[in-house]
Amino acid sequence: MHRFIRYNPVKWIFGEGSIKRMEAEAASLGKNVLLVYGGGSIKNNGVYNDVIEVLQRLEKKVTELPGVEPNPRLLTVRKGIELCRREKIDLILAAGGGSVIDTAKAIAAGALYEGDVWELIAQAGKVKEALPIGVVLTLAATGSEMNNGLVINNEETKEKIDWHSPHIFPKFAICDPAYTVSVPREQTVFGVVDTMCHIMEKYFRTSENTELQDGFSEVLLRELIQIAPLLLREPENYNYRAKLMYASTSALNGTLDLGYRGDWTSHVIEHALSGIYDIPHAGGLSILFPHWMERALASHPDRFKRFAVEVFKVEESGKSDLQIGQEGIDRLKEFWSELGAPSRLADYGIDNSCFEEVADQAMRRGEFGRFYPMNRDRVLSILQAAL
Amino acid sequence: MHRFIRYNPVKWIFGEGSIKRMEAEAASLGKNVLLVYGGGSIKNNGVYNDVIEVLQRLEKKVTELPGVEPNPRLLTVRKGIELCRREKIDLILAAGGGSVIDTAKAIAAGALYEGDVWELIAQAGKVKEALPIGVVLTLAATGSEMNNGLVINNEETKEKIDWHSPHIFPKFAICDPAYTVSVPREQTVFGVVDTMCHIMEKYFRTSENTELQDGFSEVLLRELIQIAPLLLREPENYNYRAKLMYASTSALNGTLDLGYRGDWTSHVIEHALSGIYDIPHAGGLSILFPHWMERALASHPDRFKRFAVEVFKVEESGKSDLQIGQEGIDRLKEFWSELGAPSRLADYGIDNSCFEEVADQAMRRGEFGRFYPMNRDRVLSILQAAL
Repeated sequence: MHRFIRYNPVKWIFGEGSIKRMEAEAASLGKNVLLVYGGGSIKNNGVYNDVIEVLQRLEKKVTELPGVEPNPRLLTVRKGIELCRREKIDLILAAGGGSVIDTAKAIAAGALYEGDVWELIAQAGKVKEALPIGVVLTLAATGSEMNNGLVINNEETKEKIDWHSPHIFPKFAICDPAYTVSVPREQTVFGVVDTMCHIMEKYFRTSENTELQDGFSEVLLRELIQIAPLLLREPENYNYRAKLMYASTSALNGTLDLGYRGDWTSHVIEHALSGIYDIPHAGGLSILFPHWMERALASHPDRFKRFAVEVFKVEESGKSDLQIGQEGIDRLKEFWSELGAPSRLADYGIDNSCFEEVADQAMRRGEFGRFYPMNRDRVLSILQAAL
Repeated sequence: MHRFIRYNPVKWIFGEGSIKRMEAEAASLGKNVLLVYGGGSIKNNGVYNDVIEVLQRLEKKVTELPGVEPNPRLLTVRKGIELCRREKIDLILAAGGGSVIDTAKAIAAGALYEGDVWELIAQAGKVKEALPIGVVLTLAATGSEMNNGLVINNEETKEKIDWHSPHIFPKFAICDPAYTVSVPREQTVFGVVDTMCHIMEKYFRTSENTELQDGFSEVLLRELIQIAPLLLREPENYNYRAKLMYASTSALNGTLDLGYRGDWTSHVIEHALSGIYDIPHAGGLSILFPHWMERALASHPDRFKRFAVEVFKVEESGKSDLQIGQEGIDRLKEFWSELGAPSRLADYGIDNSCFEEVADQAMRRGEFGRFYPMNRDRVLSILQAAL
C-alpha cells in the first residue's frame, strides 16, 4: 500500500429531515449569510423555504446570489466576492449541486484575498484562508459537498480550472435525498454517470496492493448499476435517491483514496471541452470515457478484465483478457446508452472544428494520464473517435 | 437508508515514514507534552526514539507516563491527570495501541474536569472539553486512533466502561505499518480477531437497504481472511501489516457506519468478562462471538447465509439457509482456531464460578442486542457454552 494522508473535517449530515440539524450547525458560524443558488429550482421544491426558515430562526441577515450556471463562471464568483465585501458576509451557504458549491468555495476563498480572484483560482497555493461554507445539497453528482476541491470556468479565456485547498472544506453538508426527488431525468442520469466516472478514474491505475480500494469501488459501481434503472422508473423513490446520494458523496470524500491517484484523463479532456462548449460535464464524460477505455485496454487487459468481471459480471470462459475487457467496455456503453446518456459529440452539435483548441487546453499542464499516458495525438484521437 | 451524521476530523497519516509528518502536525499544538505508552516495547522497536527526536526538534518539554496496562485502568488515568496538572500539560501524545490511546483520551478529558474522573468516565455527557491528543500507532486492532471512543476499567468496582465524546478525537494519527512488524504473534492474531469483530458486530443487524455497508464490510473481512495467515508466516511483510492496519482503522472510523448500529452483544459480554478477569479483549471476543452467532442464527438464517456465502464463499447448493449459515460460523471458528486464537474460557483458566457476576455486569445498562435481543438467561447460556 502507498502512503496517504486522509483528512476530511466536513460534518456529513445525511437523511430525510436533516435540514433541522442546520440550525445547530449554523448557529455559531456567522451573522451575515450569502445564500448561493442556481436557476431557481430550490424555489419550486421547497428547499429555499426550508433554508430561509432556519436562517430566520437564527436571525441571520441574508444576502442572495442566485443564478449560478451549470458550468460555474468566474463572473459569478466576482459578483459573489463583491457582495461579501459590501455586506460583510461571514458565512456562505450553498444550496444546490456541484456548480453552486464550487462557486461558493471560490467566493469563500476570494473574499479574503486582496489580489484578483483569477490569480487565486489559477493557483490553489495562494489560498491561505476562506470564509466558512455550509452546504444544502440538491443534486447528487459531484461530491463537492464533502471535499476541498472546486472547478471554475473562466469564460473569457475559456479555461476550466480545478484545484484543492484545505481551506475550502465545507463545515457541514446537509444531504437529504428527499431534496432530490424532483431532479429531472437528464440530471439524474448525469449524476449516475458523473459518480461512476469519479470512481472509475481512480479504479484504473497501475498500483498494486489495492484490493480494499478496488473492492470498495466495485461495491459502489455495482450498486449504481443496479439502482440507476430502478430510480429512473421511480424517480420519487427515497431509497434509490438515498443510494445515489450516498454513492456520489462517497466517490470523492476520501473513502476510495488510499494513496493511489488514478488516471483522470477523461476529466482533463472533458474540462477542456466544456470550458469551450459549455456542455454538461457528465454529458462530456459519458461521450469520452468509453473511448479512453478502448485506447487504454490493450496496455492493461488484466485491469479491464477485472472491471468487466467484478462490475458487470461478464462471463469469462473461453475468452481472452482483451475480449473480456472489451465486453466490459461495451456493457458500460450499453448501460449508459440505456439510461439515455449521450454517446457522441454530435449529440451536442460539436464537430471537429474545435479539436485543436480542445487539445491545446487539455495539454495546458503538460502530458498527463498516470494509467495510460496521454499526449496531444492521443487526445485528438479520442476526440476524433467521439465525433 | 437511515439517517446518520458522519464527522471525523482526525488527520489519518498512513504509511512508512509518516512520523516525519508529526513535526508539522504537533508544532502548533502545545509546549508541554505528556507521552503515554505501555510496557516498553516502543523502546525496543525504535518508536520511542523516533518520537522523542521529533519532540526535541520541536523543543517540547516532555513528561512521560509509561506502563499503561492492556486493559487500561482508572488508576493510570488518575496518575496521568495528576501529571497533567503538575506539569501544565497542553498536548497528550499516545504511542501505543488501543489501551494507550484510550488512557490518553481519558486523561485528556479528565485533566480539564474539576470533579472526580470516575464521574466523567461513567458519564460521557459530562465531557465538555479535552486537551489535544496525538497518536503514534504501534498495534493494529482497536481503531481508537481514528475515533472518539474509549474503554476504561475501574479495577476497584470491576466495571469496564465505554463511551464516545466529540471532544476526544485525536488531532492526528501517525499510522506506520513498519512500526508493527515486531508485534508478537499473539497480539497480531488479536488484532485480526478484534478488527473482524468490530466489522461483524455492525454487519449483523436487521436493517434493510444496507447493500453498500454490507459490501464494504465483506471486502474488509475477505481481505483480512486472505492476508492473516500470510502475515503470520511473514510477520515482517510491510504490505500485510499495512493491510491489517488499514482494515483495523477503517473498521471503526465511520466508513462502515451509515446509520445502522449493529448488535454489539459480544462486546458487552466481553467487557463484563475482561472487567473481572483482565483477559485480552480480543481473546474474549474469539471465545464468545461464535457462541453468540450460533444462538442468533435461527432468528436470522438469511443474514448468516449471506455472511457464509460472501465472506467465506460457502457453497450453497442443496443446503438450507440454516445449514449454510452454520457452515459460515464453523468456517469462522476454524479460521480463528488455525490462527491460534482461544476458543474456550478454560484457555484462560476461567470456570463458571463468576458467571453470575459477569451476567450482572453485562446487564448493568439493561437488556441489549439490537439484532438478537439479550437477557440475563441468554448471557448465561453463551457463557456456559463457552466454558
